[in-house]
Amino acid sequence: MRLSKFFLPTLKETPAEAQIASHRLMLRAGMVRQQSAGIYAWLPLGLRVLNKVANIVREEQNRAGINEILMPTLQSADLWRESGRYDDYGQEMLRITDRHKREMLYGPTNEEMVTDIFRTYVRSYKQLPVNLYHIQWKFRDEVRPRFGVMRGREFLMKDAYSFDLDKESAVKSYNNHFVAYLRTYQRMGLKAIPMKADTGPIGGDHSHEFIVLAETGESQVFCDKAWVETDVLENPLVKEKDLQPFVDWATGMYAATEEKHDPANCPVPAENLVTARGIEVGHIFYFGTKYSEPMKAAVTAPGSETVTVHMGSYGIGVSRLLGAIIEASHDDAGIIWPESVAPFKIGLINMKVGDATCDAAAEDLYAKFEAAGVEVLLDDRDERAGVKFADMDLIGLPWQVVIGPRGIANGMVEVKNRKTGEKREVTVAQALAELSA
Amino acid sequence: MRLSKFFLPTLKETPAEAQIASHRLMLRAGMVRQQSAGIYAWLPLGLRVLNKVANIVREEQNRAGINEILMPTLQSADLWRESGRYDDYGQEMLRITDRHKREMLYGPTNEEMVTDIFRTYVRSYKQLPVNLYHIQWKFRDEVRPRFGVMRGREFLMKDAYSFDLDKESAVKSYNNHFVAYLRTYQRMGLKAIPMKADTGPIGGDHSHEFIVLAETGESQVFCDKAWVETDVLENPLVKEKDLQPFVDWATGMYAATEEKHDPANCPVPAENLVTARGIEVGHIFYFGTKYSEPMKAAVTAPGSETVTVHMGSYGIGVSRLLGAIIEASHDDAGIIWPESVAPFKIGLINMKVGDATCDAAAEDLYAKFEAAGVEVLLDDRDERAGVKFADMDLIGLPWQVVIGPRGIANGMVEVKNRKTGEKREVTVAQALAELSA
Repeated sequence: MRLSKFFLPTLKETPAEAQIASHRLMLRAGMVRQQSAGIYAWLPLGLRVLNKVANIVREEQNRAGINEILMPTLQSADLWRESGRYDDYGQEMLRITDRHKREMLYGPTNEEMVTDIFRTYVRSYKQLPVNLYHIQWKFRDEVRPRFGVMRGREFLMKDAYSFDLDKESAVKSYNNHFVAYLRTYQRMGLKAIPMKADTGPIGGDHSHEFIVLAETGESQVFCDKAWVETDVLENPLVKEKDLQPFVDWATGMYAATEEKHDPANCPVPAENLVTARGIEVGHIFYFGTKYSEPMKAAVTAPGSETVTVHMGSYGIGVSRLLGAIIEASHDDAGIIWPESVAPFKIGLINMKVGDATCDAAAEDLYAKFEAAGVEVLLDDRDERAGVKFADMDLIGLPWQVVIGPRGIANGMVEVKNRKTGEKREVTVAQALAELSA
Repeated sequence: MRLSKFFLPTLKETPAEAQIASHRLMLRAGMVRQQSAGIYAWLPLGLRVLNKVANIVREEQNRAGINEILMPTLQSADLWRESGRYDDYGQEMLRITDRHKREMLYGPTNEEMVTDIFRTYVRSYKQLPVNLYHIQWKFRDEVRPRFGVMRGREFLMKDAYSFDLDKESAVKSYNNHFVAYLRTYQRMGLKAIPMKADTGPIGGDHSHEFIVLAETGESQVFCDKAWVETDVLENPLVKEKDLQPFVDWATGMYAATEEKHDPANCPVPAENLVTARGIEVGHIFYFGTKYSEPMKAAVTAPGSETVTVHMGSYGIGVSRLLGAIIEASHDDAGIIWPESVAPFKIGLINMKVGDATCDAAAEDLYAKFEAAGVEVLLDDRDERAGVKFADMDLIGLPWQVVIGPRGIANGMVEVKNRKTGEKREVTVAQALAELSA
């Protein structure tokens, strides 16, 4: 992509309303624009990252054998009356009346609707387990939306749902999602620690929140320092068909949110206990028959009797993850994207647009990166070099390749690693070979 | 994908509420389920096609140099008061009040919001033209939603917007979108004819609807039979930088919707005039300063004066396109997907699950197609062959490969072309080679 053709409205000033780094940097980098309180438009740079994050979530859901569907944003109030949640949910639910005076709502979550889909089509235990997910916009009418996409009102969420014949198989589904979540966050460069958590309005008695440690975290969390030091996915147990031993081992390392943490009964000695701020990036629940019972989601079991199915639900805040990733990875100059979610891998800076040698070298290298399938943003704007460097640091692409008149006269370009700041002079061919790998 | 793991609830009965073929077939093929009047959940098979259609739209927008953004579904009523459309729009606009009593709406289109984004960031003629699009869910509160996704209330739309310094350059943007649309529909196997059309509530004086001819079309349309016989994209003028000669040539062939058609002044002799039913699959508008004037979207022009920008908007009904494609391509047995939008390229039918030779051959061929990057759906269910054939015809994958005990004993499988019905006995190696190409 050429920056001259790319809608990238970066801001020099720090917007006054932004209190935390991710909000400030997303506004300054031209990723999002607030349209109403807690409601954002995604500009091209932000949308590219949102899609990368969503695609990692999608790939790991698919790999875990979960079927993707897409439920609508608006739901019928009657469905929520069946579960009893319509009246319970309070003012965070955006209630809507259509032209025929039918009561509807903008879905904050989808347990009722997916249960309705399940009961329509599934009749026999032979069709179980059923695992469905979707990635769709949700709405929660927060009293005070803030922190940018971290606590917005309209937000993108992946929510998955499992249906099983009994608790034993439901726990297998739960474990499957548990591992899928660990893989998902790791691919985004995040360390997310599963912590015992309260279940809130979703309900159920078995639940973990996945928490990223960050100074700007919204809540206090506690964990064994082993969590910080261990790459749990390296344990060979994660490759077993039965995931229970792996989950037992992983959750055997203590980790709990403030609500669940009991200092008097904490099993970890003080010197091994990490006390930190955390950002919730996912929440998984097993809640048995809480929805299937009132909504009559049942199947015929092997002995011909009718059995109410056991359910779980599994949520990842996709848009919120962008905020969490930036909180975990930025410096004073701007964002530092992990390569897996970067909007482009390389920022190619032509320091002197109009100089025939620089232009030719930039165009040549740009064409070669594109031909190699590498995502590259060419800064071909007629701007001062200082503006270009500042913008490129701000938007945080993992690699910068700088073409200047002096270097290119000797066939050399500068390659900068955005994360380490390391700069090296290399030949054009080397830059191409190293960064196309 | 294995059918035993794929949530595909096909129906034997024809649902009573479905009046047209596409609605009937999408329900029977387990593509969608109605959740409320005119509001659908997309099941795995339907979602795969929806994503393919959306991706073709996206690729052709990107190829035309249009920048992708993503605006939210909910908008502030105040924005629509600026343009004067809030009161004009009538009951099709879904009006919403949030917990702080702020008036909002579920966007039926985005002229106001995108103009607001434009005026925030763009100050100079040097930044023009600006072309932005998004693919997002919209809501129109139809009095009588019907025909499935063809006239739903919550629907997926691609809407693009152009901003130019004057009418002359705005027409260039219009022409660019005009050609992008022709390419988009052609890639989906559709012949969509641009017809002069009324502008309706969007406004403006220059507009074309893109219409697919189909017996079940919602409106009467008229065109020169040259349109039916010509592949307009083969005209070399379409490759010129200035697209005006191409657009002049194409629109020189008569085509008009009923509202614009005047039999008394029709330039086409009766023997060359096609009178048919049509389905609208896109609508493009140039409307000058209708929104930019009241909303003060202006830039500094070369002579330092402030100039109000000229705008156009360009819509494709993405979810509705699935209905149009099925109306144009089905038979009594089911859907016939064009390969570019098919949910899978190949349906691999193991006729005798449990037979060791059939199972081994099916697994082997399945693994080889997957390794070749071919999208294949393996029917590994323990069902009668008749059920499998009927389901495979119903869901309309372009190719069927049938593995039966007699054939496979001699190393042969049957390859069926869903569109022509042609069946051939070939070796396993031939099937693999031909269909992986």
